[in-house]
Amino acid sequence: MGKRVALVLAGCGVFDGSEIHEASAALVHLSRGGAEVKIFAPNIEQRDVVNHLKGSPAEEKRNVLVESARLARGNIQDLAELKASEFDAVIFPGGFGVAKNLCSWAVDGKNCTVNEHVSSTLQAFHSAKKPIGLCCISPVLAAKVFPGCEVTVGQDKNVDGRFPDAETASAIAELGCKHICKNVNESHVDKTNKIVTTCAFMCKAPLHEIFDGIGTMVQEVLKLA
Amino acid sequence: MGKRVALVLAGCGVFDGSEIHEASAALVHLSRGGAEVKIFAPNIEQRDVVNHLKGSPAEEKRNVLVESARLARGNIQDLAELKASEFDAVIFPGGFGVAKNLCSWAVDGKNCTVNEHVSSTLQAFHSAKKPIGLCCISPVLAAKVFPGCEVTVGQDKNVDGRFPDAETASAIAELGCKHICKNVNESHVDKTNKIVTTCAFMCKAPLHEIFDGIGTMVQEVLKLA
Repeated sequence: MGKRVALVLAGCGVFDGSEIHEASAALVHLSRGGAEVKIFAPNIEQRDVVNHLKGSPAEEKRNVLVESARLARGNIQDLAELKASEFDAVIFPGGFGVAKNLCSWAVDGKNCTVNEHVSSTLQAFHSAKKPIGLCCISPVLAAKVFPGCEVTVGQDKNVDGRFPDAETASAIAELGCKHICKNVNESHVDKTNKIVTTCAFMCKAPLHEIFDGIGTMVQEVLKLA
Repeated sequence: MGKRVALVLAGCGVFDGSEIHEASAALVHLSRGGAEVKIFAPNIEQRDVVNHLKGSPAEEKRNVLVESARLARGNIQDLAELKASEFDAVIFPGGFGVAKNLCSWAVDGKNCTVNEHVSSTLQAFHSAKKPIGLCCISPVLAAKVFPGCEVTVGQDKNVDGRFPDAETASAIAELGCKHICKNVNESHVDKTNKIVTTCAFMCKAPLHEIFDGIGTMVQEVLKLA
């Protein structure tokens, strides 16, 4: 039997939803690892809809669950229905949707609120000592919900211009967490909390390096599960 | 210098646009192969918008270029601007969007019409003896535009229930083309026409096998470029 893994999405598209290539990479690595995956997303309206061609807000409304279903090829459930008891691990890909729809980090930074179903999902897996995998901006969810945990969002300085959002590391430290500097092809394992993180698109890197970094995160999660 | 490859999208989501995981897989393999990629899509309205949660049409309109920009992280151009002279190869991922927005195969089958910019793009690369890579349902574009060519969409019978759309192979043969049976982890190279095809999600297979099959397609395209 493969490990049972829940994947939680936040929409479909880097600027207002889940980062598509991160979500796809996680699913490819989970498939290769023999995991049985079920996909979830909150049944809520998106904070905004961004026209990804122009990079500006569009005057329309979209639902996080309905748009996430594009990444899931229709095979998806309301996050409110996720039972941690039925899974061995949970993974959150990144993208602005995490900071807009799963929590309010995009607006409120470290003072953000976390969606109730996201928060209860994280707490349920953590309490059951089941691993949690996060990439890109998603580690802020763990930093907010589990003060004192260790996560990486890449580097804490904008090394070679490759980490333009390096100040996220400081915000994580201000939440009482430990930020661990890692390269894009690496992940960090907080063994105490069973939290595995990798920076993914927080680093300006070729797509295959991001893909491989997510691979290390998925493999560590499956090992801990 | 890496090979210059144009990737042509048809929206964002399997039921009305490009199949997301196929497009992402192609981009990962192109990145690993050192290619310089530019992404294009036609600036036209989608044939329809499908609610991917319900699997039914939604009463709204979306633009193929704008939605494709989600997969391209905003870095995309109108297909009308694609100059074959600036590239060494072109790749078309699959998804129903190919059969709805790039041509009318979803409605008209082998009597379909092909979008003028898609048709002129294919003809320009073919005339210049530059390779064309296609996966999933996209090989029907080549079958329609280049009668006599060889392509695969997997198997011509529904072997083990894994090829529910096997009749596509017959339609391709009726267009005067040769359908070559291949497994999901393989691609077929039509050396005369420099057309490389793989079945991807035309086969019900684990995602990593589809990913690997697309890898063989991308590698063959880069070899021919």
